[in-house]
Amino acid sequence: MRKVGIIMGSDSDLPIVKKAIDTLASFGIPYEVHIYSAHRTPVEARDFAVNARANGFGAIIAAAGMAAHLAGAIAANTTLPVIGIPCKSTTLDGIDALLSTVQMPSGIPVATVAINGAVNAALICAQILAVEDAELAKKLDDKRAKDAAAVLEKDARLQAELNAQ
Amino acid sequence: MRKVGIIMGSDSDLPIVKKAIDTLASFGIPYEVHIYSAHRTPVEARDFAVNARANGFGAIIAAAGMAAHLAGAIAANTTLPVIGIPCKSTTLDGIDALLSTVQMPSGIPVATVAINGAVNAALICAQILAVEDAELAKKLDDKRAKDAAAVLEKDARLQAELNAQ
Amino acid sequence: MRKVGIIMGSDSDLPIVKKAIDTLASFGIPYEVHIYSAHRTPVEARDFAVNARANGFGAIIAAAGMAAHLAGAIAANTTLPVIGIPCKSTTLDGIDALLSTVQMPSGIPVATVAINGAVNAALICAQILAVEDAELAKKLDDKRAKDAAAVLEKDARLQAELNAQ
Amino acid sequence: MRKVGIIMGSDSDLPIVKKAIDTLASFGIPYEVHIYSAHRTPVEARDFAVNARANGFGAIIAAAGMAAHLAGAIAANTTLPVIGIPCKSTTLDGIDALLSTVQMPSGIPVATVAINGAVNAALICAQILAVEDAELAKKLDDKRAKDAAAVLEKDARLQAELNAQ
Amino acid sequence: MRKVGIIMGSDSDLPIVKKAIDTLASFGIPYEVHIYSAHRTPVEARDFAVNARANGFGAIIAAAGMAAHLAGAIAANTTLPVIGIPCKSTTLDGIDALLSTVQMPSGIPVATVAINGAVNAALICAQILAVEDAELAKKLDDKRAKDAAAVLEKDARLQAELNAQ
Amino acid sequence: MRKVGIIMGSDSDLPIVKKAIDTLASFGIPYEVHIYSAHRTPVEARDFAVNARANGFGAIIAAAGMAAHLAGAIAANTTLPVIGIPCKSTTLDGIDALLSTVQMPSGIPVATVAINGAVNAALICAQILAVEDAELAKKLDDKRAKDAAAVLEKDARLQAELNAQ
Amino acid sequence: MRKVGIIMGSDSDLPIVKKAIDTLASFGIPYEVHIYSAHRTPVEARDFAVNARANGFGAIIAAAGMAAHLAGAIAANTTLPVIGIPCKSTTLDGIDALLSTVQMPSGIPVATVAINGAVNAALICAQILAVEDAELAKKLDDKRAKDAAAVLEKDARLQAELNAQ
Amino acid sequence: MRKVGIIMGSDSDLPIVKKAIDTLASFGIPYEVHIYSAHRTPVEARDFAVNARANGFGAIIAAAGMAAHLAGAIAANTTLPVIGIPCKSTTLDGIDALLSTVQMPSGIPVATVAINGAVNAALICAQILAVEDAELAKKLDDKRAKDAAAVLEKDARLQAELNAQ
Repeated sequence: MRKVGIIMGSDSDLPIVKKAIDTLASFGIPYEVHIYSAHRTPVEARDFAVNARANGFGAIIAAAGMAAHLAGAIAANTTLPVIGIPCKSTTLDGIDALLSTVQMPSGIPVATVAINGAVNAALICAQILAVEDAELAKKLDDKRAKDAAAVLEKDARLQAELNAQ
Repeated sequence: MRKVGIIMGSDSDLPIVKKAIDTLASFGIPYEVHIYSAHRTPVEARDFAVNARANGFGAIIAAAGMAAHLAGAIAANTTLPVIGIPCKSTTLDGIDALLSTVQMPSGIPVATVAINGAVNAALICAQILAVEDAELAKKLDDKRAKDAAAVLEKDARLQAELNAQ
Repeated sequence: MRKVGIIMGSDSDLPIVKKAIDTLASFGIPYEVHIYSAHRTPVEARDFAVNARANGFGAIIAAAGMAAHLAGAIAANTTLPVIGIPCKSTTLDGIDALLSTVQMPSGIPVATVAINGAVNAALICAQILAVEDAELAKKLDDKRAKDAAAVLEKDARLQAELNAQ
Repeated sequence: MRKVGIIMGSDSDLPIVKKAIDTLASFGIPYEVHIYSAHRTPVEARDFAVNARANGFGAIIAAAGMAAHLAGAIAANTTLPVIGIPCKSTTLDGIDALLSTVQMPSGIPVATVAINGAVNAALICAQILAVEDAELAKKLDDKRAKDAAAVLEKDARLQAELNAQ
Repeated sequence: MRKVGIIMGSDSDLPIVKKAIDTLASFGIPYEVHIYSAHRTPVEARDFAVNARANGFGAIIAAAGMAAHLAGAIAANTTLPVIGIPCKSTTLDGIDALLSTVQMPSGIPVATVAINGAVNAALICAQILAVEDAELAKKLDDKRAKDAAAVLEKDARLQAELNAQ
Repeated sequence: MRKVGIIMGSDSDLPIVKKAIDTLASFGIPYEVHIYSAHRTPVEARDFAVNARANGFGAIIAAAGMAAHLAGAIAANTTLPVIGIPCKSTTLDGIDALLSTVQMPSGIPVATVAINGAVNAALICAQILAVEDAELAKKLDDKRAKDAAAVLEKDARLQAELNAQ
Repeated sequence: MRKVGIIMGSDSDLPIVKKAIDTLASFGIPYEVHIYSAHRTPVEARDFAVNARANGFGAIIAAAGMAAHLAGAIAANTTLPVIGIPCKSTTLDGIDALLSTVQMPSGIPVATVAINGAVNAALICAQILAVEDAELAKKLDDKRAKDAAAVLEKDARLQAELNAQ
Repeated sequence: MRKVGIIMGSDSDLPIVKKAIDTLASFGIPYEVHIYSAHRTPVEARDFAVNARANGFGAIIAAAGMAAHLAGAIAANTTLPVIGIPCKSTTLDGIDALLSTVQMPSGIPVATVAINGAVNAALICAQILAVEDAELAKKLDDKRAKDAAAVLEKDARLQAELNAQ
């Protein structure tokens, strides 16, 4: 299976990115994680993107905060799907990162998820790899069913509690 | 090749969606276009999503404005990648549609593009289908090179104009 | 009396929703509470809405955060009055949920209250049921008078404190 | 049938309010329309609200822009359901009116619709009156079905156009 | 000297309002403080405003949060200067209260200060009363000079600290 | 009677400021109008403020757009009441001017009106001058009554139109 | 004298950038203008930045809209001062470009001007070059004086007009 | 070498400003720090700016919160480069300070950094002074290389940790 690349702009984004890693791992999807900053290590960020397809990657997740250019900088150097996670920073509640990630100009797309939405970034990668992989698609459907069951179980528990009152 | 589904919530979104259609067509990617509202025709929207993978779709674009639930409603009923286009409406400049599309809860991802970003929505679909399709990947790289050349040509023209002054 | 349905998108919304439950209970209005997610359990959410009128409901409260589609998804499947509570989540202070709930397109209304405004959601249900129920209307007027008296009592206490200084 | 009161803060809101009037008329719901400003004619606005239930009203729509206090001022003086329409003014795209209308304190609810959402305000009134009026509920269901059919017809037309290309 | 009326919409606003009280007291300006809600006690709020000029008031401060209608409701019922303090509440950081207070329609002005800006609200009242009161004007000038001296003293201390390093 | 000073930061603000001038004139209040920029002519702006009280002014209106410092710069140099009009510019719909005008630090108040709210700025000046001027207060009450009558007349006309249908 | 580099992300930014060019020209400051996109021509943008100091540049202006990464991408590849102009695009009034330009992480600064603030971007470059160039500093002071005189002349004209009435 | 002036509007801004001081010190750049408020000590703020060039300053940093006029007030009185730091205050997360600092009118530029972006403000000053100072430019390049190395070291550590699992 093709790997997923996960790039974060700063190690302070690791607690968020960790959820993407765990989600990919839960699907058995191979991944590679790097701390590359679009601004502090532009060469490394670019090189990773330029070579990603040849290096066996199928999608790239990029997580960054503030004027979050990382996803766009990766997307500018590959035609692989790039998923952007806008990270909430110490001011503005992540709206700066969201707009910096999602408002990409025509031609260089970044598939953006919610602020701090690392699980969903990983799920989009799984969905992408599952387009031609029925087994992975089955796993996604299974997780969906399990998530639904978990909600309904919570509902059942709530009914029990309410009836017990 | 798997098809791309394009769903818009209202025919008023067609001028925006048209750019996604044209982009897909320029890559020779098969597509199907529908006007299905998450609110006015929830059954049809749901049925499309539920059956999309079986019906040969590889990705779905959903375009809607205001409290733009369409992409989320589609995403809730398929594990195919769903790309959301937040459409600018008559008030709030599209920020309502952007937040309604991108801020999805964990488990049900929507890959969101810029407000009215229909070209990029189509490009993400092409990128997804190109993960296992080297020919399509080549076409994406070619378009990228052509876009770059167009910028540089404009730069050259600008230099000529400035020198002529 | 017709029942009020209260649906929340996640059990994390329960602390907010609890205030709506308590308010309904204080008026002796029968209610039913469920955890149904528009995205994770779209079938159950839909079924609840489709059958709500036949099942004796007179109004439905839907509480959700982020890209809060729940109220809209319920409203799309019933013509009972649907009251939306936008819940504040971990980012953006609830403005995403507010816009996702209130900016509904023409034809599918959601009666929206303030961010986390669960008490008022319950009061609107009580007001709706009171339109043809003079006794309930009386209870609403009584509560209003009691609330006013509480404010004036606080004012009186403040005067006493200020005079004592 | 109980009447719907429609109050607008200024005659400049009439083009918006007109859609609420037409919607009510289309359902055969009796209504009364007034221009009463919460600020310029507070006495008349208050008197209308205080006497609304006794005067045969079942719900009140209040439309205003900017620091839109009208719906709240009406709601403070009646326990009938009050539906607020935030009207877009010359600056801020209606966000001032939206927040001034929806962010009501606990105890005095305003059921708020989208910015300029006059049709939906009228539909909520119809839904409220339909709780105990099966005939009106049937009309609402019929309109819903007609709206859905209109979407599907547009979809069919789109398919025809696309096939003709 | 004319009195200043201070009205707050809820006793939860008292910690903010306290600073206005203390500021007025420091200038020896007589004041009266009340908890009157525009929504929960509209009659008392209105009566206070209607009679304020006759009752010897020269300006009124109104403090409220969320859909902060209090200042506007007071202003609608008097032609005395009304100063509005938008209070920060549990969501939206006070921007709802700011817009609800400041965006008044033409004809009914509210002189608005910063979110939670109670000291400045009191200072505006002092400035208003000082227009025809040279002694009070002198006190304002003295406080201004003292404030400036305090800044310069802090600067001097900073210089000393920096030089000591 | 004390004069009102009206300062605008740029002659492009004149169409807005004109309404303040006309309003003052309608009350017979003397005024002086100047174009002084806080940034381009800081000396003149400051000198006007420093000497305003001695020069017979009772209040000062300052109108500016963008990073609207004018009202604050005036307020920093006088203890007369300063009323700020945030002017809408070519971007951001005036929210920059509003925040730059209203969010003044403790000690230097600016009484802020709505974006482009020039009429209300003049009315606040009239209200300030009327605190000790019963005749002017009477004129304010008369205008208020006339404004109310105008609303009610519009309402009456609307009733006539609706009845004629 | 060192040159100023002006880079715009798209030729659609030229009408804005033109004002920066004209301003530089009015001071006799040499400049070079390019259309280089951070996303479409990342190599050329990077190369320009990397070599700018060696190529005789003293400061670089970068103008871009939407998720405006250009200034940051330039700043990541040079330690020359980089001035960012956030350009207003078709949605969101330029707030996306402003936040994407100004909210740079620690270590890679972008000196940001107002949305569409091209004249000021050029003036900052002139100010930078004037730090060690007394003649240029004199020109800046002269322009400042001329700008002030222009304001005062407008004020004088306004006085004349008002007196003539 | 020319000095950098650092002005803060209030001593509460010192924790932020401290990072600018430390950054300048790390480059061996001479500086002078003052607490001068644009509003409380307008004379001192102005005098500092007017005399800054003659007093050997090469650039000025101004840090302030809320309606942050300080940078603009300094910029209005000097043609030295002025760098503005918008400081986050107790409400609105710094967006008021950002807009008040960056949205300067044409003619009076303020080079604005991120909210609380004190390190970058100092770096811009270093970059300005380095335009004609090859040694300082070298130090900036060295710091850039060190910052990049630090990122890559963190990446290497992350790889080690991931491999160790």
